[in-house]
Amino acid sequence: MPQIRLALAQVNPTVGALDANADLVVRFASHAAGRGAHLVAFPEMVLTGYPVEDLALRRSFVDASRRALDALAGRLVAEGLGEVAVVVGYLDRDDDPAHTERLGRPRGAPQNAVAVLHGGRVVATQAKHHLPNYGVFDEFRHFVPGEHLDVVRLHGIDIALAICEDLWQEGGPVAATRATGAGLLLVVNASPYERNKDDVRLDLCRRRAAQADCTLAYVAMVGGQDELVFDGDSIVVAADGEVLGRAPQFEDGCLVVDLDLPARTAPAPVLGTVAHAEAAGYPVRRTVISTAPLPAYEPQPAGVAPRIGEHAEVYAAVVTGLRDYVRKNGFRSVVFGLSGGIDSALVAVAACDAIGPPNVYGVSMPSRYSSEHSKSDARELADRTGLAFSTVPIAPMVAAFLDNIELSGLAEENLQARVRGMTLMGLSNQHGHLVLATGNKSELAVGYSTIYGDSVGGYAPLKDVGKTLVWELARWRNAAAQARGETPPIPQGSIEKPPSAELRPGQLDADTLPDYALLDDVLDDYVEQDRGSAELVAAGFDPELVREIVRLVDRAEYKRRQYPPGPKITTRNFGRDRRVPITSAWVEPPPSGTP
Amino acid sequence: MPQIRLALAQVNPTVGALDANADLVVRFASHAAGRGAHLVAFPEMVLTGYPVEDLALRRSFVDASRRALDALAGRLVAEGLGEVAVVVGYLDRDDDPAHTERLGRPRGAPQNAVAVLHGGRVVATQAKHHLPNYGVFDEFRHFVPGEHLDVVRLHGIDIALAICEDLWQEGGPVAATRATGAGLLLVVNASPYERNKDDVRLDLCRRRAAQADCTLAYVAMVGGQDELVFDGDSIVVAADGEVLGRAPQFEDGCLVVDLDLPARTAPAPVLGTVAHAEAAGYPVRRTVISTAPLPAYEPQPAGVAPRIGEHAEVYAAVVTGLRDYVRKNGFRSVVFGLSGGIDSALVAVAACDAIGPPNVYGVSMPSRYSSEHSKSDARELADRTGLAFSTVPIAPMVAAFLDNIELSGLAEENLQARVRGMTLMGLSNQHGHLVLATGNKSELAVGYSTIYGDSVGGYAPLKDVGKTLVWELARWRNAAAQARGETPPIPQGSIEKPPSAELRPGQLDADTLPDYALLDDVLDDYVEQDRGSAELVAAGFDPELVREIVRLVDRAEYKRRQYPPGPKITTRNFGRDRRVPITSAWVEPPPSGTP
Repeated sequence: MPQIRLALAQVNPTVGALDANADLVVRFASHAAGRGAHLVAFPEMVLTGYPVEDLALRRSFVDASRRALDALAGRLVAEGLGEVAVVVGYLDRDDDPAHTERLGRPRGAPQNAVAVLHGGRVVATQAKHHLPNYGVFDEFRHFVPGEHLDVVRLHGIDIALAICEDLWQEGGPVAATRATGAGLLLVVNASPYERNKDDVRLDLCRRRAAQADCTLAYVAMVGGQDELVFDGDSIVVAADGEVLGRAPQFEDGCLVVDLDLPARTAPAPVLGTVAHAEAAGYPVRRTVISTAPLPAYEPQPAGVAPRIGEHAEVYAAVVTGLRDYVRKNGFRSVVFGLSGGIDSALVAVAACDAIGPPNVYGVSMPSRYSSEHSKSDARELADRTGLAFSTVPIAPMVAAFLDNIELSGLAEENLQARVRGMTLMGLSNQHGHLVLATGNKSELAVGYSTIYGDSVGGYAPLKDVGKTLVWELARWRNAAAQARGETPPIPQGSIEKPPSAELRPGQLDADTLPDYALLDDVLDDYVEQDRGSAELVAAGFDPELVREIVRLVDRAEYKRRQYPPGPKITTRNFGRDRRVPITSAWVEPPPSGTP
Repeated sequence: MPQIRLALAQVNPTVGALDANADLVVRFASHAAGRGAHLVAFPEMVLTGYPVEDLALRRSFVDASRRALDALAGRLVAEGLGEVAVVVGYLDRDDDPAHTERLGRPRGAPQNAVAVLHGGRVVATQAKHHLPNYGVFDEFRHFVPGEHLDVVRLHGIDIALAICEDLWQEGGPVAATRATGAGLLLVVNASPYERNKDDVRLDLCRRRAAQADCTLAYVAMVGGQDELVFDGDSIVVAADGEVLGRAPQFEDGCLVVDLDLPARTAPAPVLGTVAHAEAAGYPVRRTVISTAPLPAYEPQPAGVAPRIGEHAEVYAAVVTGLRDYVRKNGFRSVVFGLSGGIDSALVAVAACDAIGPPNVYGVSMPSRYSSEHSKSDARELADRTGLAFSTVPIAPMVAAFLDNIELSGLAEENLQARVRGMTLMGLSNQHGHLVLATGNKSELAVGYSTIYGDSVGGYAPLKDVGKTLVWELARWRNAAAQARGETPPIPQGSIEKPPSAELRPGQLDADTLPDYALLDDVLDDYVEQDRGSAELVAAGFDPELVREIVRLVDRAEYKRRQYPPGPKITTRNFGRDRRVPITSAWVEPPPSGTP
């Protein structure tokens, strides 16, 4: 059987950075060629970054992506890589007016496409067939679907192409690939991280490899883009389900896998031409780069990275999202309130891991209600991590407001949180730090957060991390440090003390909210599973508790709309995933039988 | 030809308020019946409100909508309205598993539907065929398309149904209506307001009436829902384009039109049964309510409301959006900073028009940089309008911050804006007012706005109104007052003085920004028309100016994400219409030939 050395380049592009992304492709292609690869594949839309959102609708951007693709083909030759086939995702335009008219879409509508570059030319292109338009995806808004399957013959091996969602659907490219008898199905992806107990992607790759009856290579993106984090996990599986190679999660790098694949005897066009046919109801375009198999060579073993644990995974997503938001938006440092509580402690440690302690500014902003342990826990964390620590007591600013406006009760509590937010914004304006909001998902869900107070920030690392998970991550991070022989960064006091906003004497979260374990359990059902009240009660939750939590969640939507972005961790984050109206009189009906 | 009296109920439902919306239907149906109507039509999704966004994906909500529809049918009979045919939009579920499977969507997927109620029963239902998924619309995310055209025979007249976007597409229900030979095409709509010089809807109705070869009735929604404003403008046109009736914009009410329509001799099923056929490639379901024409009666003349002027229209959209955001979210009063400038002056007057001067709280918050005319113009406006006016000097709070944190330059300027924002939030927390952000679209576009400062608020009436248009509206509103013999509410000083943020001595907007007329011109091209830099330069703008404005707009996206909602006025508002990444390295390329 003919051999081929495949490299999957698991890289971290930046949205809109066409030149830098092209550099990334050249650098990784060069590295892969140095390791003897004949075929190098990059993720979905690597040239533009992903998702580009409404930039896809701007003609100047689509034109620039097409020009960048052509330029890249030429540049690869100039770098001595003309003999390597390079597969890259990019943003294209549908040049077939009959096709877009049939779809009722404007001429020249954008497409999410993949190209095969070889010998200085774009030898084949294919547009995504299945456009996801649920959850965080809006691809029906941005793209028109492709309708061809492209099969490229390289060193005598037929390689079929697919893009991300095409793999998640049984029909279309997967079925057509089987019908063409291709030896390899190469899938380019940008699949956002989502906390999952099961190994969904590997299961899917195995199932589709069996359905396509060939080896399947899945190349994934890494890195953060606004609310999304791409976790990598590129995979190669044989048709029988054997894992031939797997890249580590959350790390960029190049997975090199030697493959023995069936030679094709199916009819193929003359070198350099394109032939049209049909398979499983799909139009197929066949292109030949080279027909002769490579001389036999000694295959090298490929790496199969183990999966990391659940907490390591979530923590890596938080750190990756934070690091890339900082870096890709041109910041060098972050600042936030270090209260001594668990949320800001975890944010502090994640920030130190993301960009290094000298770039992390933690500010203790005690008020008259702050406990001694708050102040000492904050300082202790600063000492353990080495972050830049300072203290700004808020009493004088709070007093200035109270002397001039009559504020009491909740208004006075919120005032304290807002003086802290303003203090952080002042430091940000003065020194150029990015402000981090340290709130967690449970608080944001029920509105236990002061708008323009603790919600202040450009990025919110724990936006999609519930309080229960915050504690788990803190314990996990400390244990991981201990296992490496390091000092656990988070003081035990911050982990163990009962949560409190400390905005009035003796205040505890538990005065206002149910126990967090219970709250998070209800929120998982209501927010992440989108279940109605009746279902929640049927699942065993107390009807009055359900009524109260649902009410709190519903009426806090206006706060969430003004909250900064943060990394998506769960199946349904507040933001791209869950889009509900602010103005809504809908009240979940009580289950039948309850008053 | 058989006669029928048609009533188009142009109403203002609330999202999620199923009971209140059903009450609205009963009230208007009852009123219409009192005026002798035989057929009463309500807008798209009147029963649930529109758009419901991801509430459509919650099973409990879909179930509740279906139950509310059945209950409504019964209630209409109980109210003595069983003989009137009532057409209402609602949220339904696709009960045909074969259909959703063919579409690759889950069983029981939601549908945007319309029902005909008569004699206590739901006699016909039809789901929207064309699902808009561009601009502010995400209907492909929320619904599966319908595939039947329903034709209902009432008093011998065949009535075909369509829902909003179905009218904007030539194929589908419009073409099928012609093929069925129906006498009336009844279209239920929820079409968001957008500033437009031309009378797009009437042109469309005329064109489609000709294509369907029958009279066309277009019933529209009024009212505000988060960022959308529905402006009404229900229309009835004959096949030859004659306008038979037209409702006023922005007002709820009932348009009653007597029609003479062709009797149908086409085959029809027995009373109470449903017959299936096909027309123009579409499956058609025919239902008969009654076959005998009504006894001849004397028709009454219908109203044809004139269109209001462009400035009246925009102003009405601002007032409607504001009034409904306040009312539907349970507020009774608003508070905002009254600076003496034009933006807050226009917001103040719009708020007075929306909810009455006693509910409008304007706060003058002078700093050491505030001019005398700022303070006097603010007070003068309060005197003219009768709004509740107060003064809170910010110097002590600003001093408290400056004494405790070292802030200078921009940080100090922003501090002043933020002290004002905090002051307003304190008053909001203390007294329950909704805070309004008074910034305009031009400022928001270029980021000339302090996050957590002047951006503070639950609603931003001028979010989609450019500065130039703000001045025009102010002048128009004053002139309208004068024409009615009233005192112009806005002091001439506020209109005429050069705009200034007054955050440092002698500061003017013109120090930092280009002339607003020029700025708005570029913004119209870049933001609203989504043109690239090269196109802007080709249109005659200075390349350096274009580069600078584009840069400002691109890097202010993070601020816009945390800005409150405000009424959509233009073809592309910041929010639902324009969805671009925060993290983006894309820089519009200079036009060829420029350095």
